[in-house]
Amino acid sequence: MTGTRTETDTFGPIEVPEDRLWGAQTQRSLHNFRIGDETMPLPLIHAFGLVKQAAVLANMEAGLIEPDIGEAIADAAREVADGTLDAHFPLKVWQTGSGTQTNMNVNEVIANRANIALGGTPGAKSPVHPNDHVNRSQSSNDSFPSAMHIAAVRELSGGLMPALMHLHAALDGKSRDWNEIVKLGRTHLQDATPITLGQEFSGYAAQVSAGMDRLEACLPRLYPLAQGATAVGTGLNAPDGFGVRFAAHVAHLAGLPFTSAANPFEAIAAHDAMVELSGALNTLAASLYKIAQDIRFLGSGPRSGLGELMLPANEPGSSIMPGKVNPTQCEAMTMVCAQVMGNHVTVTFAGSQGNFELNVFKPVIVFNVLQSIRLIGDAARSFTDHCVAGIEPDRARIEALMEQSLMLVTALAPHVGYDRAAKIAKQAHATGSTLRQAALAAGIVEADYDSWVQPLAMTRPDRG
Amino acid sequence: MTGTRTETDTFGPIEVPEDRLWGAQTQRSLHNFRIGDETMPLPLIHAFGLVKQAAVLANMEAGLIEPDIGEAIADAAREVADGTLDAHFPLKVWQTGSGTQTNMNVNEVIANRANIALGGTPGAKSPVHPNDHVNRSQSSNDSFPSAMHIAAVRELSGGLMPALMHLHAALDGKSRDWNEIVKLGRTHLQDATPITLGQEFSGYAAQVSAGMDRLEACLPRLYPLAQGATAVGTGLNAPDGFGVRFAAHVAHLAGLPFTSAANPFEAIAAHDAMVELSGALNTLAASLYKIAQDIRFLGSGPRSGLGELMLPANEPGSSIMPGKVNPTQCEAMTMVCAQVMGNHVTVTFAGSQGNFELNVFKPVIVFNVLQSIRLIGDAARSFTDHCVAGIEPDRARIEALMEQSLMLVTALAPHVGYDRAAKIAKQAHATGSTLRQAALAAGIVEADYDSWVQPLAMTRPDRG
Amino acid sequence: MTGTRTETDTFGPIEVPEDRLWGAQTQRSLHNFRIGDETMPLPLIHAFGLVKQAAVLANMEAGLIEPDIGEAIADAAREVADGTLDAHFPLKVWQTGSGTQTNMNVNEVIANRANIALGGTPGAKSPVHPNDHVNRSQSSNDSFPSAMHIAAVRELSGGLMPALMHLHAALDGKSRDWNEIVKLGRTHLQDATPITLGQEFSGYAAQVSAGMDRLEACLPRLYPLAQGATAVGTGLNAPDGFGVRFAAHVAHLAGLPFTSAANPFEAIAAHDAMVELSGALNTLAASLYKIAQDIRFLGSGPRSGLGELMLPANEPGSSIMPGKVNPTQCEAMTMVCAQVMGNHVTVTFAGSQGNFELNVFKPVIVFNVLQSIRLIGDAARSFTDHCVAGIEPDRARIEALMEQSLMLVTALAPHVGYDRAAKIAKQAHATGSTLRQAALAAGIVEADYDSWVQPLAMTRPDRG
Amino acid sequence: MTGTRTETDTFGPIEVPEDRLWGAQTQRSLHNFRIGDETMPLPLIHAFGLVKQAAVLANMEAGLIEPDIGEAIADAAREVADGTLDAHFPLKVWQTGSGTQTNMNVNEVIANRANIALGGTPGAKSPVHPNDHVNRSQSSNDSFPSAMHIAAVRELSGGLMPALMHLHAALDGKSRDWNEIVKLGRTHLQDATPITLGQEFSGYAAQVSAGMDRLEACLPRLYPLAQGATAVGTGLNAPDGFGVRFAAHVAHLAGLPFTSAANPFEAIAAHDAMVELSGALNTLAASLYKIAQDIRFLGSGPRSGLGELMLPANEPGSSIMPGKVNPTQCEAMTMVCAQVMGNHVTVTFAGSQGNFELNVFKPVIVFNVLQSIRLIGDAARSFTDHCVAGIEPDRARIEALMEQSLMLVTALAPHVGYDRAAKIAKQAHATGSTLRQAALAAGIVEADYDSWVQPLAMTRPDRG
Repeated sequence: MTGTRTETDTFGPIEVPEDRLWGAQTQRSLHNFRIGDETMPLPLIHAFGLVKQAAVLANMEAGLIEPDIGEAIADAAREVADGTLDAHFPLKVWQTGSGTQTNMNVNEVIANRANIALGGTPGAKSPVHPNDHVNRSQSSNDSFPSAMHIAAVRELSGGLMPALMHLHAALDGKSRDWNEIVKLGRTHLQDATPITLGQEFSGYAAQVSAGMDRLEACLPRLYPLAQGATAVGTGLNAPDGFGVRFAAHVAHLAGLPFTSAANPFEAIAAHDAMVELSGALNTLAASLYKIAQDIRFLGSGPRSGLGELMLPANEPGSSIMPGKVNPTQCEAMTMVCAQVMGNHVTVTFAGSQGNFELNVFKPVIVFNVLQSIRLIGDAARSFTDHCVAGIEPDRARIEALMEQSLMLVTALAPHVGYDRAAKIAKQAHATGSTLRQAALAAGIVEADYDSWVQPLAMTRPDRG
Repeated sequence: MTGTRTETDTFGPIEVPEDRLWGAQTQRSLHNFRIGDETMPLPLIHAFGLVKQAAVLANMEAGLIEPDIGEAIADAAREVADGTLDAHFPLKVWQTGSGTQTNMNVNEVIANRANIALGGTPGAKSPVHPNDHVNRSQSSNDSFPSAMHIAAVRELSGGLMPALMHLHAALDGKSRDWNEIVKLGRTHLQDATPITLGQEFSGYAAQVSAGMDRLEACLPRLYPLAQGATAVGTGLNAPDGFGVRFAAHVAHLAGLPFTSAANPFEAIAAHDAMVELSGALNTLAASLYKIAQDIRFLGSGPRSGLGELMLPANEPGSSIMPGKVNPTQCEAMTMVCAQVMGNHVTVTFAGSQGNFELNVFKPVIVFNVLQSIRLIGDAARSFTDHCVAGIEPDRARIEALMEQSLMLVTALAPHVGYDRAAKIAKQAHATGSTLRQAALAAGIVEADYDSWVQPLAMTRPDRG
Repeated sequence: MTGTRTETDTFGPIEVPEDRLWGAQTQRSLHNFRIGDETMPLPLIHAFGLVKQAAVLANMEAGLIEPDIGEAIADAAREVADGTLDAHFPLKVWQTGSGTQTNMNVNEVIANRANIALGGTPGAKSPVHPNDHVNRSQSSNDSFPSAMHIAAVRELSGGLMPALMHLHAALDGKSRDWNEIVKLGRTHLQDATPITLGQEFSGYAAQVSAGMDRLEACLPRLYPLAQGATAVGTGLNAPDGFGVRFAAHVAHLAGLPFTSAANPFEAIAAHDAMVELSGALNTLAASLYKIAQDIRFLGSGPRSGLGELMLPANEPGSSIMPGKVNPTQCEAMTMVCAQVMGNHVTVTFAGSQGNFELNVFKPVIVFNVLQSIRLIGDAARSFTDHCVAGIEPDRARIEALMEQSLMLVTALAPHVGYDRAAKIAKQAHATGSTLRQAALAAGIVEADYDSWVQPLAMTRPDRG
Repeated sequence: MTGTRTETDTFGPIEVPEDRLWGAQTQRSLHNFRIGDETMPLPLIHAFGLVKQAAVLANMEAGLIEPDIGEAIADAAREVADGTLDAHFPLKVWQTGSGTQTNMNVNEVIANRANIALGGTPGAKSPVHPNDHVNRSQSSNDSFPSAMHIAAVRELSGGLMPALMHLHAALDGKSRDWNEIVKLGRTHLQDATPITLGQEFSGYAAQVSAGMDRLEACLPRLYPLAQGATAVGTGLNAPDGFGVRFAAHVAHLAGLPFTSAANPFEAIAAHDAMVELSGALNTLAASLYKIAQDIRFLGSGPRSGLGELMLPANEPGSSIMPGKVNPTQCEAMTMVCAQVMGNHVTVTFAGSQGNFELNVFKPVIVFNVLQSIRLIGDAARSFTDHCVAGIEPDRARIEALMEQSLMLVTALAPHVGYDRAAKIAKQAHATGSTLRQAALAAGIVEADYDSWVQPLAMTRPDRG
């Protein structure tokens, strides 16, 4: 238990833990919002560091902050952005809906950190003041949504997109490797005509690839930042051109093409761009669900499931049952997908509930979007490394299922007529024989059968 | 009550109403799926007409259908596309998940219609056979999703997009007309600094404009059609190049740049493109909800609400209460938005549930997507014509609220200092006076006050 | 095309189709709300008939309506309740959020019908006036939610509950019939220890049974009716005790224990009871999804799926592939479940959006709840009759899968020790032999093996 | 950085941090599931402590565990239940869908803790073995869902229900205190007839009260525990009567009437009871949303909102704007409600996705349900203490709005006729006068007006 120091805000003095850099408003929020365990996501805090760094640079350019103060703020903001000060951001997601208290948390930590660097003491608010300097030309109403967009784009570009590329490469590789493995297709879960295992996996790869396209399609509405709108969108109290200069600094610092929002009123009153992004994540969840679900069913068995794939065994499934490999990576992935779909409903609801000049569901929106990005990215990587990469086809099983299938009869029809083909298939079904056995019993010459019924050819009709 | 004729399928004969063109499989579906009242949406049926027309043209090119048969099919398919035969499509949404029965309904109606045109009798399946001719080179598995994409894109381009442009034009017009009307901004529902009514509406216009961009961003994944994939994606039983030729015909017939899907396996096993589109509609619903909600609150009153807008009175609100105008168009719009958000959850769930080579939730997916498109489009048009177009600002009320606002104190601060400004505002709040009264009482010269406190200037800080 | 007659409301005269009984406000709504195709559900209209019948009886008791007028109204209202006048209710769901226009539609139709019966002419509003007589002591704000509750409860008791009992009886019957059929259990989709097919189906029956309990648990909050609250909950303009008398009449007419809501303010400002009911339907959808999904997977094949169940063939699956039976009833059921889950999100959203004294999402709420009730009920009945009732186990397949399973090794362990048992299982897995073969090869005496490894006993460990 | 020790499982040896009590399977899960930050909720871990304690007692009764081993296990399990060992449960939600790894985490920690207590060393698995002793007669498949139910019920009874009672008491108290404060009612957001502030709050209290009833209605399906079902529901490897004895121990330890599930197959293959509970939480979220939304709108202002309520100021709203109190507690509550609604979709989706003998979405289900319970409970308490308790009506504002309302004209009608009353109201609306002024100007005697127009009486029509 450390001691405390006194910090103040317009509500008066309040005790703050001595070893923490936050100030009075943060401390008050801790007291007023004892709700849940969910704290503001760190990627948002780090993005806030960038926001404050870019803001002070723009303020200095506008001559609003003196160089020494400004540089101290920029240094402290960089520490926030780098994650060095993560321990000083204790606030919950469940606070004011504009995220004001987190904005103040950032302002307070940066001011205290800068004051210490300048030889001052925490709590003094001098020479660096959390409002007058760190928050200069800004409002929570525009800086919080700027941090939302920055955090989301950075998590996409640095986390989710590379993870999806990793997954895509693995699926695409399997698709190429298994291009000649002919297997039974299944529609309505029922036996259907042949397909190659490579073709099946090419569909998965195509889904992931389209998922990346969908994320990229959101970027034109995520790069624009609200900064410069200040409290209601008019930019009151921000210098002329502040938003544009700010965006240029963020773009430079982040290495990503952020811009200033064309309509500042929309940018703070609505978060449609986040709802849209959540929709792209939701679509991705639907895609990944299908892929993981297929893989766990294709790997089911070892004796009484479909058994076409052998999934890697990463942990004890059952201590007595060799061959029992639970598809745990698929299960983790499908649970993540369920979470993302629910998060999307939260984001949609919250996104629809803005009023007048402000949407006050900012924290819950960014919390859910960042969680979805993180979870899909991590799950995609885990699923790739611990499952997809190690999948092996059970060639014997695939071939056996293929051989006993009756759907190959489709290939007989052009040669012997539909009626006779159907009769052969029915006979095979009734007696439990293979199609081949029934065909030969029906008088078809073996050589003819073998030249007509070529499963691989049925998967490449175009090439015929 | 009309008489019946006998139609047959592989399950045997079945009686069909004499005056209907459908056949045995349709009739059997009517018997087997007595679930709800929801029939397949007509835009899907019309799109199916295009599918069958394009398919027969491609089949004729490939020499698979003789010209006289083919032309009769093409003519009948055009009637389906034109809506002339709407009465012959009675099937429910709740049927087989591949939409096979609706595909057969289309095949049967076209075959019977073509046979009549060629001098035959319905039910004869000759000279035109529903499977061998109308469904030639196709499977329900690829023709149903092709019809899904065609219907969705046509409803977008012919219905929703024009309706959104109409709404956008109205909002944008109001934004320009009301550019100089200064009003109180509201954040957290609380009084804030000034904004113009035009700026407020510019935010709404920007939301609608971005909504259109979001719909357009989906098109690259909606134009590709599954046709040519046939049953499992391999294209078995379709001639070489069928999908590409088919897509070219559809593009020509529809006047829209449809293409052949690059990965046919993905195109029938997943409907991610529809989930994505549903997500764009969901975002639009969130946007329109905010707009309609704001407008109904700004129009609340007549005496005890916010009362800044006067909404047109379209119907009796209350027989005794003059001035009571219920915001009924806003209410219809917000209910539509609620429906679209729920539909999106249905589509997402259904989209995630494909297995192996086929997603068998096609009917429920297209039903919900088309309903969402239709409802938003109709509601946008109704809301524009019966509400937005007729809104008038209550200038006196807006000015009165502006005048009594204390937030104008923000403009005093740079001149008299924050402390003195705050004291004036506190005094006004305590005594219920206006800020002007309190300022003058505190010794500020009237001319100074009037030159300092200029609400309009506070909405254009950049121009200062 | 029929002619028109002139009807009037406070907005003036308007032309109405001659052969329709509705009046001016209905006609005006048709003009103002051209949104979608969805009309007010008929069960709601019928419930409104009951509402008007009960209201006029209560009004007559209070001496507010003369007997001859009252009896004519009661007769006309009964016709509405009976469905005789369904053609006269054309209004859309997407109208005013209080359902005022549908309430007026009902008032107008009843007034016109009663006036005709009393020898008058439609449109005369005399001797029976739609507002002064038919709507006497009522507001849309309390009569619409009363009709919502009545419609929902009647659809439950007359439609959904009997359908669920029907499904439960079928599942329970199968559970008993198949009590001795030992099959492989599956967890994580992987082979597990034995279970009987009857036990498996007993789980399904238990889910349906609990689903009925869940619906019944909602009734204590659905029986209370809002009537008597009038416009804001205070009961202004309704006579003393009106709500209680009204509820007694409804209870008598409907044969269901409706009561008067204890808190009238809650009853019109919120529709939590409908959200709750929708939640029970949503849970049911989750249950039925699992059941239908299991059955379609257990029936997958015929050769390369799980193949333990043989589902009835109701329609041609494929013209050439005998034995290919698509699980179409399962697919219809799973699509219905997806719809119900989405409807629930719509209802939840709408339910949360009431303001002050009124929730103005009443039409969309009742539309979705009634659709969900109808769809689950119809699908349950269809699924029972066309699928569950006709399912047969493939005993040979079940036994073969059972026999080749390695999980029976669990029964060896207590006799030969875990290590030796595991070694036998591993050997069987490696060589592809049965457990029995591997055990005998490992030196276990045949008689011992057969007395130790008794799958049926493994499903009844309690009885051992 | 501490050193490590070697732990082993059937996959071999693995290094574990020296100061942690977990074993090899936990460590392996840490490696295999690097997904997100979300760890298993502590209430679940604590419930697992109870599960293991009850299980070992039942095992001892059945003579399956010797007393000294059993007592050491019971002691260690009690420590888990008490929260003393929270630092030893590092596993993620995103793991195997049966929660096997968390079950093993519990087994490993208890075994190591018990072995230390018995003088042994961690990792030795002797004398207490994590599987053979701690997990005796159990499977993850039945112990995880048992812990789910126990955790949910305990969080309800110890957390959420008391918080709701607290909120209900506050709302009910306000309802009584403000029973005579007559205010304007609002429907469609428009001015309507009078209501008392107490009546309005009675509606809120009724919503919360019904919410508690809804939670209680779930208990009959939450008290039953799956324990005794073991792997597939048959109870294989558990002694006769184990489930019943186990439930009796849990009931005794928890002081809550837990029972043994009647159908063990349903209890592990489905989690409908959790979906149902989530539905009750979802309904509560809809209720609380309406309450918080109303309160923040009624407290809007200070000058240009509705302004009928004065919400407590808990933190600086704006440094310069006295009287600006942001409704931050309402905002936190509405964000929580949005989260709970989304969580419900996740739970519903996950609940529908069981297959055969097991639902493998257990972790994501319990994670979301426990989060929803916690968030609503915490938010209800925070909202009560920091908002509801301190709300004061602005009596002057309420009276002024009431006085200027035109809806009081409803009370004139019975005395002067509807036509004359409407004319007076219209005149007041046109001239902006009060109804009183217009009435007197129209010749109504002042004394008559005052005796006829009594707003309070209009809120109590029954008493008239």
